[in-house]
Amino acid sequence: MSEYFERSVMLHRQLGGKLGTHSKVQVRTQDDLSLVYTPGVAAVSEAIAREPAEAFPLSLKGNSVAIVSDGSAVLGLGNIGALGALPVMEGKAVLFQEYAGITAFPLCLDTQDTEEIIRTVRLCAPSFGGVNLEDISAPRCFEIEAALQDLGIPVMHDDQHGTAVVVLAALLNAVKLTGRTIEQCTVVINGAGAAGTAIARLLRCVGQDPSVCVPVKEVFVCDSKGILSKQREDLSETKQDLLKYTNRSARSGTLEDALEGADVFVGVSKGNLLGPSHLARMAKDPMVFGLANPIPEIMPDVAREAGAAVVGTGRSDFPNQINNVLAFPGIFRGALDARSPVIDDKMKIAAAHALAAMVETPEPERVIPSPLDKAVAHRVAEAVQAAAPTS
Amino acid sequence: MSEYFERSVMLHRQLGGKLGTHSKVQVRTQDDLSLVYTPGVAAVSEAIAREPAEAFPLSLKGNSVAIVSDGSAVLGLGNIGALGALPVMEGKAVLFQEYAGITAFPLCLDTQDTEEIIRTVRLCAPSFGGVNLEDISAPRCFEIEAALQDLGIPVMHDDQHGTAVVVLAALLNAVKLTGRTIEQCTVVINGAGAAGTAIARLLRCVGQDPSVCVPVKEVFVCDSKGILSKQREDLSETKQDLLKYTNRSARSGTLEDALEGADVFVGVSKGNLLGPSHLARMAKDPMVFGLANPIPEIMPDVAREAGAAVVGTGRSDFPNQINNVLAFPGIFRGALDARSPVIDDKMKIAAAHALAAMVETPEPERVIPSPLDKAVAHRVAEAVQAAAPTS
Repeated sequence: MSEYFERSVMLHRQLGGKLGTHSKVQVRTQDDLSLVYTPGVAAVSEAIAREPAEAFPLSLKGNSVAIVSDGSAVLGLGNIGALGALPVMEGKAVLFQEYAGITAFPLCLDTQDTEEIIRTVRLCAPSFGGVNLEDISAPRCFEIEAALQDLGIPVMHDDQHGTAVVVLAALLNAVKLTGRTIEQCTVVINGAGAAGTAIARLLRCVGQDPSVCVPVKEVFVCDSKGILSKQREDLSETKQDLLKYTNRSARSGTLEDALEGADVFVGVSKGNLLGPSHLARMAKDPMVFGLANPIPEIMPDVAREAGAAVVGTGRSDFPNQINNVLAFPGIFRGALDARSPVIDDKMKIAAAHALAAMVETPEPERVIPSPLDKAVAHRVAEAVQAAAPTS
Repeated sequence: MSEYFERSVMLHRQLGGKLGTHSKVQVRTQDDLSLVYTPGVAAVSEAIAREPAEAFPLSLKGNSVAIVSDGSAVLGLGNIGALGALPVMEGKAVLFQEYAGITAFPLCLDTQDTEEIIRTVRLCAPSFGGVNLEDISAPRCFEIEAALQDLGIPVMHDDQHGTAVVVLAALLNAVKLTGRTIEQCTVVINGAGAAGTAIARLLRCVGQDPSVCVPVKEVFVCDSKGILSKQREDLSETKQDLLKYTNRSARSGTLEDALEGADVFVGVSKGNLLGPSHLARMAKDPMVFGLANPIPEIMPDVAREAGAAVVGTGRSDFPNQINNVLAFPGIFRGALDARSPVIDDKMKIAAAHALAAMVETPEPERVIPSPLDKAVAHRVAEAVQAAAPTS
């Protein structure tokens, strides 16, 4: 992957960053200036001061998303701080624009204090129609996201939900190929951080309407010490919470014990953790998603060799890339179009189904569309908009 | 002026706001995606984490300005709050882009607490190369601007300094036309708020290097109760501070008393305050800048009739429009190009001189360039960059 490193730095230096602004109107004449700025703009401000909802159609608010990070959990780099996170958030803003025509702006915050991040997002909210939380470490990411759900604009932590939506979409297609149904599947998630938690919640339909959500049979979540179980006395509050909807069979032990008879492996942990002997413990035709980057939990050729029926990774140079860009542009586009105050579970599930449906005939090497297919965001947006709560 | 109101609202609604983002790179291929986002961007983040100054050339930071407002003093509308201020700040962002190629983004803050505004700007600073404070009421604007001077990126309250720079530029040309020098002039400023204070400071060369700054002879600042003087017992701290460099002749009384023998009137107050009898008290060939919007302190035809040699207003439909757009794009462009940590007085004075020099042959109806002349920002930027402190 490092082939891109030097070229990427060169490209960024040459461009002076990737994101710019543009004006939708030219300012050439006095008339232009009077309409865009003073005196004309005063009437627009007054209209919004009278009726705050008018900010959505009359300003950039209706189409803008803040990409908020504290730089505490950036890509594979870890806690590199706000400034180091900036190129990633800027890149995300570029993807929002390129995939969904959304005016996104990176807000990298020079604090890692949970309360201060919450407060800052609240204070900056007037300029935005949505907030994408990004690369904020667990468990703070859960608290921050939860605290901001009353903001009146959708706030979503993409590392959690974007990933969960794409995994669910891939799984919806993968089960078809292996003659299973979702509700028959036992899923092992290795990694109990932001993504692992959100995937477990979504696959188990936590807090969701049973009429729209079919839960998988069982989920085991493992951390570096093994299966999260009631027997464990070292679990954080967040991990204890996971026990409410995972490990209903009260299994304890190692990752190997969790894999016994499992149908699906989802890795959001680190590279090269799994070998053929692990897959041998799983049910026949297992589905294996090793999402660690840049080195997956198990390399695709090894997994296939060991009998995996469907293999996905986080990498672009292998089939079935589980890439959040398949989800977040369409999810926010749909939420903005619906002017939804939240991105709720129903909208996420709608996104996953729309995403899965973009693959007309699933095949083992194609259970999920290509991250380069820009029609995806449009279709996801339609489904998300339709699923949004009506006000 | 209201002819623009309905059209402006219509235009804003039709466009859905005025500002958008654009990507400097196309994202079409896997190669594009890998360079702009993962995995390539990781190398850019690491480069910045190692050496924070690299954020300027490698991300949008080097070319981005936050336009920060709390909506407490918006145009002529007053305290309409953050959301109401948004179209104005968005319009300003459009002007930054159109005049100086700067990626500016409106940050309208949902608080009017001084400390909280200061803290929020600090926390959001990683994403920006400069901060334009806007439409924040006095005296909070002074405190906020002063508290942020150590941020490492330039922070300027445009209502103060943008206005002051353009007034100084106009005055530099106006004195030539009336056979005076700057140091001979007595100036009456009506209005002791943000703009009035900054104009007084700049005209009196407060805190400035005497080798680059020539102060006017005397400045009287008036508020609604008359001349700020030592006799007044009702002066706020900010107004008391003004006495350190204004009213050295210890005059007291009304605006009329201030005007006695004055060479220059600068109004940053409200419309229709001045009549021919006021101008009759001034020195021969007075220079009159009534900047209240939309109705100036005295209408140009009345002022000229009463003997004014040079007349300026804030309005686009009269000659000599004192418009901040003549200053702020070039000032920030120059500060960003110099990667200056501040916008200091030397830079502001350089901006005023560059701006004045853009009018080759000053005439009574042309002491300042047109706000539509986009060459101005470029020339101002060059002068500001050259005047910036060397690190």
